[in-house]
Parts: sequence; structure tokens; C-alpha cells
Amino acid sequence: MIVTPSLQPVQILREIWKPITLLFVWDVIVTVTYFMLPFHAPELPVTLFGSALALFLGFRSNSAYQRWWEGRGLWGLMINASRNIARAARNFMPDPDAAELKRRVVLRQIAYVNALRCQLRRIKPDAEVLRMLSRGDADASLERTNIANGILDDTGRRIDEARRKGWIDTIQQTQMEAVLVDIANAQGGMERLKNTPLPYQYRFFPTVFTHMFCILLPIGLVETLGVATPLGSTLAGVMFLAVLAIGDDLVDPFANTVHDLPLNAMCRTIEIDLLQSIGEEAPPPVLPDKHGILW
Amino acid sequence: MIVTPSLQPVQILREIWKPITLLFVWDVIVTVTYFMLPFHAPELPVTLFGSALALFLGFRSNSAYQRWWEGRGLWGLMINASRNIARAARNFMPDPDAAELKRRVVLRQIAYVNALRCQLRRIKPDAEVLRMLSRGDADASLERTNIANGILDDTGRRIDEARRKGWIDTIQQTQMEAVLVDIANAQGGMERLKNTPLPYQYRFFPTVFTHMFCILLPIGLVETLGVATPLGSTLAGVMFLAVLAIGDDLVDPFANTVHDLPLNAMCRTIEIDLLQSIGEEAPPPVLPDKHGILW
Amino acid sequence: MIVTPSLQPVQILREIWKPITLLFVWDVIVTVTYFMLPFHAPELPVTLFGSALALFLGFRSNSAYQRWWEGRGLWGLMINASRNIARAARNFMPDPDAAELKRRVVLRQIAYVNALRCQLRRIKPDAEVLRMLSRGDADASLERTNIANGILDDTGRRIDEARRKGWIDTIQQTQMEAVLVDIANAQGGMERLKNTPLPYQYRFFPTVFTHMFCILLPIGLVETLGVATPLGSTLAGVMFLAVLAIGDDLVDPFANTVHDLPLNAMCRTIEIDLLQSIGEEAPPPVLPDKHGILW
Amino acid sequence: MIVTPSLQPVQILREIWKPITLLFVWDVIVTVTYFMLPFHAPELPVTLFGSALALFLGFRSNSAYQRWWEGRGLWGLMINASRNIARAARNFMPDPDAAELKRRVVLRQIAYVNALRCQLRRIKPDAEVLRMLSRGDADASLERTNIANGILDDTGRRIDEARRKGWIDTIQQTQMEAVLVDIANAQGGMERLKNTPLPYQYRFFPTVFTHMFCILLPIGLVETLGVATPLGSTLAGVMFLAVLAIGDDLVDPFANTVHDLPLNAMCRTIEIDLLQSIGEEAPPPVLPDKHGILW
Amino acid sequence: MIVTPSLQPVQILREIWKPITLLFVWDVIVTVTYFMLPFHAPELPVTLFGSALALFLGFRSNSAYQRWWEGRGLWGLMINASRNIARAARNFMPDPDAAELKRRVVLRQIAYVNALRCQLRRIKPDAEVLRMLSRGDADASLERTNIANGILDDTGRRIDEARRKGWIDTIQQTQMEAVLVDIANAQGGMERLKNTPLPYQYRFFPTVFTHMFCILLPIGLVETLGVATPLGSTLAGVMFLAVLAIGDDLVDPFANTVHDLPLNAMCRTIEIDLLQSIGEEAPPPVLPDKHGILW
Repeated sequence: MIVTPSLQPVQILREIWKPITLLFVWDVIVTVTYFMLPFHAPELPVTLFGSALALFLGFRSNSAYQRWWEGRGLWGLMINASRNIARAARNFMPDPDAAELKRRVVLRQIAYVNALRCQLRRIKPDAEVLRMLSRGDADASLERTNIANGILDDTGRRIDEARRKGWIDTIQQTQMEAVLVDIANAQGGMERLKNTPLPYQYRFFPTVFTHMFCILLPIGLVETLGVATPLGSTLAGVMFLAVLAIGDDLVDPFANTVHDLPLNAMCRTIEIDLLQSIGEEAPPPVLPDKHGILW
Repeated sequence: MIVTPSLQPVQILREIWKPITLLFVWDVIVTVTYFMLPFHAPELPVTLFGSALALFLGFRSNSAYQRWWEGRGLWGLMINASRNIARAARNFMPDPDAAELKRRVVLRQIAYVNALRCQLRRIKPDAEVLRMLSRGDADASLERTNIANGILDDTGRRIDEARRKGWIDTIQQTQMEAVLVDIANAQGGMERLKNTPLPYQYRFFPTVFTHMFCILLPIGLVETLGVATPLGSTLAGVMFLAVLAIGDDLVDPFANTVHDLPLNAMCRTIEIDLLQSIGEEAPPPVLPDKHGILW
Repeated sequence: MIVTPSLQPVQILREIWKPITLLFVWDVIVTVTYFMLPFHAPELPVTLFGSALALFLGFRSNSAYQRWWEGRGLWGLMINASRNIARAARNFMPDPDAAELKRRVVLRQIAYVNALRCQLRRIKPDAEVLRMLSRGDADASLERTNIANGILDDTGRRIDEARRKGWIDTIQQTQMEAVLVDIANAQGGMERLKNTPLPYQYRFFPTVFTHMFCILLPIGLVETLGVATPLGSTLAGVMFLAVLAIGDDLVDPFANTVHDLPLNAMCRTIEIDLLQSIGEEAPPPVLPDKHGILW
Repeated sequence: MIVTPSLQPVQILREIWKPITLLFVWDVIVTVTYFMLPFHAPELPVTLFGSALALFLGFRSNSAYQRWWEGRGLWGLMINASRNIARAARNFMPDPDAAELKRRVVLRQIAYVNALRCQLRRIKPDAEVLRMLSRGDADASLERTNIANGILDDTGRRIDEARRKGWIDTIQQTQMEAVLVDIANAQGGMERLKNTPLPYQYRFFPTVFTHMFCILLPIGLVETLGVATPLGSTLAGVMFLAVLAIGDDLVDPFANTVHDLPLNAMCRTIEIDLLQSIGEEAPPPVLPDKHGILW
Repeated sequence: MIVTPSLQPVQILREIWKPITLLFVWDVIVTVTYFMLPFHAPELPVTLFGSALALFLGFRSNSAYQRWWEGRGLWGLMINASRNIARAARNFMPDPDAAELKRRVVLRQIAYVNALRCQLRRIKPDAEVLRMLSRGDADASLERTNIANGILDDTGRRIDEARRKGWIDTIQQTQMEAVLVDIANAQGGMERLKNTPLPYQYRFFPTVFTHMFCILLPIGLVETLGVATPLGSTLAGVMFLAVLAIGDDLVDPFANTVHDLPLNAMCRTIEIDLLQSIGEEAPPPVLPDKHGILW
């Protein structure tokens, strides 16, 4: 996620100079042809095209943004729930005998969010996950199809262990279980976003129509605009292409590109909060890299 | 649901070549007539028509998408709740005597989601359902009008059985019952989507007006566009027809067409998660077929 | 609610032939006058009018649809909560002595939803309500201003009776009470929709402006369209009138017209689910009538 | 709130005849000047102005409506929660010794909603509040900055008193406390609406731009419309002014004007429901006054 | 936050006179050049540009407003939850021995919201925070990366202390813990808003395109408008610039500018409510300053 507050045209330009150049070249070709050949450019109903296209693009960029923001909201819920499970573990079991189990629950939660991060980005569970799980513990979870869910199931078992040992009663257990439900719901929501692309039509038609619009635009405008066609046509075209690009960038908020959510940073935030809550040393927060991007 | 990430114009073309051809033929007829006969084409207010039509279509495709996305969200909640009931069953009853009942609760949940899938797709409960229910158990449920709801009711009875046998107390029972409430709410939401079509006016008017618009468009444009009428008119028409088609495709998210939600795949996801959570062998996930469609 | 999937122009035409005819006659009068009298029709800014009108109508039909859909959602919640209260009653009290009270709770819930249906449709509590309540029970509730709420209050008392007799403990009681809270919230939401019309401005202005727009439209178009005025003007007018009509049809989802929610059918759905859940005979579902309308 | 179902142009006209007249006079002045003086009216881009203005006004009236509807929704939640606290008080304490405390809790809730109504409308707590509170009880609450919140705090104390006397256990107490949380949340939401006006920009710019638009409109149209300018310009102007006015009317839903929410009527609804639930005489509902306005 | 109800053009003018002047000067330059030099101004498709720009700006100001309103909503939840935790602390522990701990919980909550205010505004915890925390208590929290979260964790420990001392049971503890969960969720939501700017594209493109639009507007209009170009062009330009500015002002609701949320005032509201609820002296509310701004 690009977090630098000031405008950085360079970063943006790097992404969009290609379509702009192509568009401009095409607009120049049309204009030159118009003045060279004695052809009568039809006054295409570009405003009508524009309205219909706006229907598609407006909708699509709204949906894409909502997906991106929902993804962020779900990670926010995950941060909250991680704090809640840690606070409950810490405060419900003041018994010194429970210290080790308490610590386990907290470390497992850090492992859990890192495992989830890896799953969402379609990479193997990395060192962060394994470091936090004592190897023996994790075996069963690591063999499950959905590793994160396996870790959570086993955290629930630890909590029941605390109940069996009398450190908490069933009331406190169900309160902690309710937090696990929050965690499972947040995970489920993220997997829904990850596994459900926008409907095919919303991916196909906007792309095709925007490109056709850009191709026809100079033809429809050249009669009116004359030599100013490349300017007017490229500008209008770039605006529509930009809306199209935003849709592509935001639609998968867990895709590990510069536009996506900073899962590394958020997992670290959880790690810091949780380690400090049980009084352990915490690593420093993840900071934006030199391009102003937070991963 | 079409999940292939790349554009596949062929799949789309197969669906839309008919209306495009019809539209183009009509546009050619109008243009040819215009040049053959000395008729004066009225300058119909196509922009005004377009605005009014956009009101309808914009609204309709938004509503259709929201229904589709709500349907997906409800299945997401079902996946989450299935994991939650399994985790609770697994962890609340460590007693070895409870193993069989625990397993039953989990298998019943797999049967439940498959029964619900069949109900939503208006097919008879299939082998997946019966396989998971021990036949004796299921008799009562299978005779109910709403089979899925019957299965859920009986799962609640099993949980009360666990309480009567002292494996869980009423606190843990109500926590599990709260998950059953989540499940029932998700089911109710899906049935609401299935049984409540868009209001009749939103199905009737957009279809009629879009077709009338496509018929009148070349007449309104031919005076300005001349020989370019078929091009401009067909393109504009196709854009509005595409928006119309999206509304039709998405409005019933449980309809068992290529555009609808992959209920098979999601039921399998639940089956895998739940079987693995009680340590049993799980089948492989459902993958997209060769056309990139996930069912 | 019209549930027939195919287009039925006849049903729609029956509703809209009057305004269409009026509109067409007016458009013809204007056109004829224009060609008979030497008057110069002003080029009214119909596009500007159209934009401002679209602001109103777009907003109004969105709000109306949202009210309709929220009404449907609330009845969906009522169906879910009815199943939840029945499942809890059935499973929490396996004691044979509790059978009669259990049955009462379930029958009262069926009476409750029917009483609510009658209140929302502004009719007296009908036979469905009284049949389900044993007369003695209902006396107090039937004398209350809000009968449905009275029935619910007394259901709560039955549940407390179960607690006093030791069939359930206070934990199970509060779980059932939580379902009663869901039911009361759904009822409150429906009453809110019923008792709060759209703000007066949203009822007044769109109607007035749409009619003025239809009156002025042919005057503004006749200079350009000539003899095609009645065609172009009537079509555009009908589109705006149709959006207006949708707002009127959907704004009160409990009004007992063909466009409203099928409360009869939903009450029957609840009745079937609940009676079957306690093992009693259930009546058949309500089906659409011959016009494809579900009441 | 205006609840009369039929159109009452008189009520509306009384509010808008002034701006309409002003607008019309201005439009006539411009038109007359145009025909008297040989000035060339510039073809101002009124459509472009209209689009930008529509951005503002569309957004603003949406936000205003959402605030109004959220305000209504929050009062709906308050009605529900009031019923829920009364039902719990009534059913959880069948002990005859608890009758007086039970009655107190219910009467306090009626006092509470009336105190909140007074706070929202910025008036002193009126007789309705004091009548329901036994004077001694209320002293402490009445001295607090936020009286309603003080009443609620003390209701919580009464519920704890019931627990100390053994009429309810802590499980039932927390169920009732959860309803108090619902009540506090609804109150907080209402105070948020009351204390947070729309951002300054949304109040300033739309007003200024709409008026400028109305001033420039006849100048921009007179070249095209000629003598019909006052008609076309006034109509378009009134439509935009009407959208502006709606925003002003709805933005503060607790302002005690004819457009706002009928708090009196809703407090009475609560009073009737609650008094009847404990078997006491209830006053009649508040009806609309002769102008069709419900306060 | 500007809360003065009347229009104060001076405040607004102070912010926008610069761009207006620049715009006007540019418009005059273009117009003068047009009349001096014999250049043919191209009829740029400004309406098409306007539509595409409206897509961006409409979306952006909606998103910005939603962020601002969500921020306000989250602080509203914080106020509610603060009242809820205070009411629970006050009423659940009538035991005189618990008085000191009760008071601590309430004072800690006041410290907590002030610490959160400081974190959101990126300033060090100020005197308000330290005053409310007894120094010894706070040491651990003040050393944590997320101080507010640390304070909350320790509040949870106090509540567990009350349980260990027998003043509350685990049921009441979990009810209070549930309120802490509400508080943690509100904090997490605020941090989400603070740490997640709008996607880069929504910050970059609207700014660039609006400025380009303002530069090209007079060139596109001068052919039609002639000497009236500066008027028409500046007005249209200002409207788009105003929408752009609103987006910038509202997008970060915790930024400590005149447009942002009055965190000081809201923290004080909480302080007053909570101190009065335990019967202590409360400071007066924060009032708007002489410019009508509430901080």
C-alpha cells in the first residue's frame, strides 16, 4: 500500500506511460489521416458511449474499492480480536501455573495471523509462523488443508485444557470461544474476498468497452476538434483508462502488489501488541520502504 | 462461477453473438432504408432516452450484484459457522465417551450444508446428504418440508443429549446453540434471496425499454451518422444490452448456471475443514472445470 | 408479490395503459396544434429538466426499493427467529412433563406472526391468530393496543414458568429470551417501516415534477421532432412515469397490494416449519394464484 | 412529521411560494432586459453547471435522508429495547415482593425516553419525565449534565438491587444489563446525530452554488428560449431549490419542526406498551393534528 | 469541526480565495489572448471531461464523507461503551470495599480515551492522561507501543481482581469484558481509518484531472462564451475545485484541523458522564471557540 502523503507522479507515471503513449499515437494517426485523406469522420455519439461506459466503470470501481475497504476492515477486526483473545488469556488466568499455557495461546495467535497472511498471498507458511509455534504443537495443523483454521482449532483445545485444569470456568471459556468465533468470521470473510473474483462480466465488458471507446473517440471528435484532437481525445481517454486501472488494482486486496493491503505490517502490529501484553520483548514496527510503500 | 483470471472472449461471445447480430442486422436495415427511400429520420432525443434507461439499468445491475454478493456473503457465514460448530464440538467434549456424538454433530453439519445446497438449487437431496447422515437419524428430517431445517433441529437435540449426559453444561450448550442460530440465520437469508425475485417492475421495464431503445437508436442516429450508423448504433446498443444481461445473470445467485455461486465447491470446502478437524480423511477440493468454471 | 418468472405484459399494461393513453393524446394535441397554428415552440431545456428529475426519481426509487427489501429482510429474520425459538423450546426441555408448555410456546409463536401480519395490514386479528391461541391465554394480549407485543410478553412468561418448574435453568432462559429480543427487534423494524412514510417532499415533488415534465416535453421537442413528437415524447414520458410508479408501488411493503410482500405465504412457511418441528401435521404451503401473485 | 397520505399542495406552497416568486420575478427581469436592451446573452454552460451542482445536491440530500432515517431507526431500536427491558422485568421476577421494583423499572424507562426526547429537542425535562419518576429517586439524575444517562445508570442500580435481594441471579442481571447497553447505544447514536452537523462545506457550497445557478440560469437560457425563459428557467430553478430545501429539512431529524421525527408520538407508543405490559391503564396514542402532522 | 449553524462566508473565503483568484486570472488570460490573437479555440469536449471527472470526484467525496462519518460513529461507540463500563462498574459492585477499585476502573477509562485521542492526533500522551492514572499504575502501559491498548489490558486485570476478591462473579466479569471488547473494536476501527489513507489513485488522479480540467475549461468555452468566459469558466471551475477540497478536508477525520472531529470535546463529554456517574465533580463541557469551531 502506497502511504506516502505527497503526490508522486513518477510512481504513477511508471505505471501509466505505456497506455498514454499508445493512446496518443493512435489519436495522432487518426488526426493525420483525417487531414491527409478526404474522409468524412462520422459524428459518433461519444457522449452516449461515455454515459454507458460510466455506468460500467462507476459501478466497477465502487465495487473494487468496497472489496479493498472490506478487506482492510476484516484485518482490522483480526487485530481487535487478537488483542481481545490476548487480554482475556492474560487476565482470566492469574494462576502462576497457567503462565505457560497463557503464553502459548498468545504465541499461537501470532502464528495464526501469519499463517493466514501466507494463505491469502498464496505462499507457503513462512518462518514467522513456525517460529511462534512450538514444532510439536503445530504438526497436526500444518498438515491440514487450511492451516490457519487448524491452528485456531487447536487454540480452542488449549482453552478447554485451561478449563479442565480449573483455571477458568465454562463462562470464561465461552467468552474466549466467542472471540475465536470473531476470528474465524474474519478469516472466512477474507477467504471469501480472495476466492470470489468480481463477476466475469464486470471484468470483461469494462475492459473491452473502454478500449473500444478509446479507439473510436478520436474518430468521433476529429470533425469538431481538428488539430486539437490528440489533446482532447488523449485526455478523455486517459481519464477513463485511469478509472479502469483503479478497478484492477483494488479488486484483490490480498494480492501482494504495491496497491494491496500491508499484511506484513499488520501482522507485525499484532505481534507487538500481543508480545508486550504478556511482557515480552517485541520487534520494531514495519515501516514503509524508500518508495513510500508499506507491505 | 467463472474463475479464470484471463479474458476469454469466446465464452462471452457464445452468449452474446445472437443479440449483437440481430442488432447489427436491424441497424443495417434502417441505414439502407434511409439511403434508398427519401424518408426524413426524426432526431429522436436518444440522449434523454439514454438517461432514463441508465436510471433503470444502473439501479437494476446494482441490485443484482448486491444480491449475488449477499448470497456469497451468506455462504461465507455458513462456512464460518460450520467451522465454529465443529471447533466447539471437538473442544468442549474431550471425554472419550463423547467421541461418537461429537463425530455425529460434525457429519450432520456436512449433511446439512449439502441438503441446503440441494434445496437452493431445487434438486432432491443427493448422495452427499444421505452418505453423511446415518439413515436412521435422518428419517424424521427427510420427511419435513424443509429438510435442512429439520437436520439442524435434530443437531440441536444431539447437543442437548450431550448436556443430559453431562459432557457439556448449559453454558457450553447455549454457546453451541448460538452457533446454530447463526446457521439458521444464514439459511434464512439464502431462502429469502431464492424466494424473492426482484420486483416485477425491475424485471419488466428494463427489458422492454432496452429493446425499444435498441430499435429506435439507428432511426435517431442515421441522420447524423449516415453510413456509420450500424457501427455507432450497434456499439451503443450492445453496451446497454450487456448491462441488461448482467442483471439477469446475477439476480439469482443460486440458480446453477455458469454465472452463479460455486455451491458444490463451498460444500466441499466445509466437508474438508470439518473432516480434518475431527482427524478423518478428507476428499480433495473441487477445482474449476476445463472452461474455468467452478460449480 | 408477483412471482411469475416470465414477462406478463398484460398485467403491467392493465396498470399503465391509462397514463400512456393520456400522455399520447396530449402529445398528439401539441403536435397537431404546432402544425395547425403558426406558433413557435420554445426549445425548452428538457435535458436539464431531465437531469434534475433524475436526481429526484433515482433517489426515490432507490429509497422505495430499500424499504421494500428491508421489509423482506425483517420478515426473513422473523422466520429465522421463529425457527430458533422452536428449536430451543423443543431441545432444551426433553422432560415429558414439559411437552404441553413446549407445544404452547410453539403455537403461540405461530399466533404471534399472524397477529403481526394482521397489524401490519391494518386488519383485525383473524382466525389464524385465534385458532393457535387457546382462548383463555389470549385474553390479556388481545386487549392490548399492540396485540402482537402482548402475545410475545406472555410467551416470555411461559418460558419463565419453565424455569420455575426447573425444566430449564436461567442460562437456557436467557438464551431463549435473546431470541425473543430478536423477534421484538424485527417487529419494531416492521412497525417503523409501516408508520414512517417517505418524507413528504419525496412524495410530493417527484409526482408534481414528473407530471410537469410530461406536459412540457412535447412542447420542447416538437420543433426538432416534428411529426415524430408523439412517439419520442410518449416513450420518454412513459419511462419517467414508470420510475415514478415503481416508487409508489414499493414504498409500503406491507400494504396488501399485488406488489407487496407475501405475508400470508411467509406466515404459512413459519407455521409449517414450527408444526413439523414438534411433530404435528402441517398445512400445505401457500402457492401463487392464477395470475402468478403470491399473497 | 407530515403523515397525511394525500398530496397537500397548500402546505408545500406555503413553504415555497417565496423563493418561487423571487425566482420568477428575476427571470422576468432578465427576459425583459434582453428584449429591451440590445445585449448579447452569453450561452453559459448551464448543463455543465447543472452536472456539478447535481454532484453536490445529490450527495447532500442523500446524506440528509440517511441521517433522518438513521434517527428514525435509532428511535425504533429504543422502542424495541424499552419493550425488551419491560418484558424481562415482568417475566424474570414473578416473586410478589418484587412487584414494586418491577413497576419502578418500567416507569423509569418511560421517564428515560421522555427525558431523552427533551434533551434532543433542547428543552427542559417536562412534566412527562417528572410524573414517571418518584421525585426522591430522580434527584441525583436530574442534577447530572446528561439527565437521561443518569436515569439509566440508576435503573441499572435497581436491577442490581433485585439481584442482591435474590429475585434474579447474575445471569438474568447480565441479560437485562445487555438491554441497557442497547438503550445506551441508541441514545449515543441519537446524540451523535444531534451534535454533529453535516460538514460545513456541505452546508455552505450547495446553498451558494444553487442560488448562483438560479441567478445565471435565465441569462444562459434567454438566447435560446426567448419569451419562454421565465417558464423554463423558473421550473428548472425550482427543481434544484426543492432538492436543496429537502436537505435542510431532513438534516436534523430531532429539530422539532414539521419535517422532523414524531418524538412525542413515539414516546407515547413506548408509554402505552410498557404500562399495558405491567397491567396499568395507558393513555391513548398521539394522533396527527388537523394539518396531518404527527409531533 | 465547524459547528456554527449560520453561513460564514469569511471562513470559507479565507480558504478558497487563492485558487479562485488563480483560476480567474487564468480565465482572463485565455479570454484576452483569444480576442488579441487570431487563434481558433478548439471546442474541447468539456462535457465529456466533466462526466469522467464527476465519476472520480463523486466517488472520492463520498468515500471521504463516509470515512469522516465512520470516524464519528466510532467515537460515538466509544462514548457509549465508556458509559456502559462505568454503569457496570458502579452497579455490579455495591460492596463498600470495592469503592476504590470501582473508582479506578472509571478513572482509567477517562485516561484511556484521552490516551487514544493523543495517539490518533500523533501527539504525546498529555496531562489529561497522566492526571487520571495513578502514576504507579500506568508505568507498564506507558511503556507499550500502543499505550491506549496497554491501559485497556490493565483495566481488564482490575476487573479480574474484583472477581478474585469475590465482588463480582465470572458472569458479571464476562459482561464487563464484553464491553472491553466493544472498546477495543472501536479503537481498532479508528486506527484503521488513521493508518489507511484512501488508495493512492484516488488521491492522485482527481487532483491532477481537476486541475487539468480547470486549465482547459476556458480554452474549450471561449469560442462560445466570448467575453463571458471568465465568469462561466471560473464558476464551473470553482464548483469542481470545491468538491475536490471537500475530499481533502474530510478524508482524515482525526487530523486536528478545523474540519476534523472534536476529539477534545468528546473526551470531555466522557469525562463528565463518568465522573458524575461515580458522584464526583465534573469539569464544564468544551464549547466552540469564537470562530465557531469545536476542537
